Amino acid sequence: MGTDAAATTAGKVVWHTTMSLDGFIAGPGDSMDWALRADLGPTEAGTAMIRDTGAILAGRRWYDMSLTRPDWAPYGGSWQGPVFVLTHRPPAPPPGSQVAFVSGEIRDAVATARTAAAGRDVVVFGPTVAQACLDADVLDEILVHVVPVLLGDGVRLFARPGADRPVQLQRTALAESGQLTDLRFEVTRR
Amino acid sequence: MGTDAAATTAGKVVWHTTMSLDGFIAGPGDSMDWALRADLGPTEAGTAMIRDTGAILAGRRWYDMSLTRPDWAPYGGSWQGPVFVLTHRPPAPPPGSQVAFVSGEIRDAVATARTAAAGRDVVVFGPTVAQACLDADVLDEILVHVVPVLLGDGVRLFARPGADRPVQLQRTALAESGQLTDLRFEVTRR
Repeated sequence: MGTDAAATTAGKVVWHTTMSLDGFIAGPGDSMDWALRADLGPTEAGTAMIRDTGAILAGRRWYDMSLTRPDWAPYGGSWQGPVFVLTHRPPAPPPGSQVAFVSGEIRDAVATARTAAAGRDVVVFGPTVAQACLDADVLDEILVHVVPVLLGDGVRLFARPGADRPVQLQRTALAESGQLTDLRFEVTRR
Repeated sequence: MGTDAAATTAGKVVWHTTMSLDGFIAGPGDSMDWALRADLGPTEAGTAMIRDTGAILAGRRWYDMSLTRPDWAPYGGSWQGPVFVLTHRPPAPPPGSQVAFVSGEIRDAVATARTAAAGRDVVVFGPTVAQACLDADVLDEILVHVVPVLLGDGVRLFARPGADRPVQLQRTALAESGQLTDLRFEVTRR
């Protein structure tokens, strides 16, 4: 492993999400059916992200959804590895699962996931965790798959009422995968 | 003009807007400074849109802002033509202006703008008018310039609380203009 670049360079912390054009990552009632159009993907950017993912840091909402929806397994089951769920109320870990619960500071959770990722990327699932990473200035990149639909309501990509300090980004990649638009950004550190 | 394709074919009704990655077309307090980054544009898609614009149909908010901000002139003053402002409380038209106020049904307002556009496109400014066009099923396309920034609050691209019928789109164009990402969509009619 000593010559493996992925193992010897520091991985990135990447927020990976699917979004409607109008900025929702889930519809009302956490619906995701709008993201299942036949003319979307497969996406090269998504495939590359799966390859580069060393660990996942997810929010409690994602975990609770994953218990009831098999398709909410990381990358639909096409990836195996350590998953850390950030929660203030850790439940008993499900038997045989690679899920571990972490509490406390976001920086510590990211550090734990980084160690587990062993030089590959830490992928963040969920806007609450991602926003905490942004606030702590530990988010490196955002990979968004934009679905050509207007939802009008649901779970927002980024919600910060009264925000007076925009988060500046730099687009580093742009691609289309069928009707999906893949956008990748670096977060400009403060 | 009889052989001019633009004059003999029906123009489209196009919602043209700038948007933050997280789906805001204006920040808190209608701020637009986030869209003035030096690394954005000029955009070919925007230039083509200006060329194709025969008339503008705008909302009252846009009009009120245009009175106080010279940069809110249509396309920063680089376009001249008829502007229709949809409002239930028409003020006195400013002297020497190409602005006309229209009230009543959105379909009638669009028809008025279409006539004035004489075969070229009617461009819609403002989410309230655009949403009314969507509801009346008279919006043909959406052209969005995505600015690489997260605002977290402000005026939403599309807000419809409790929406249970997503508006399906088909992406027809994708381009980058510096750090700006230009996305064009056709609205799937119901």
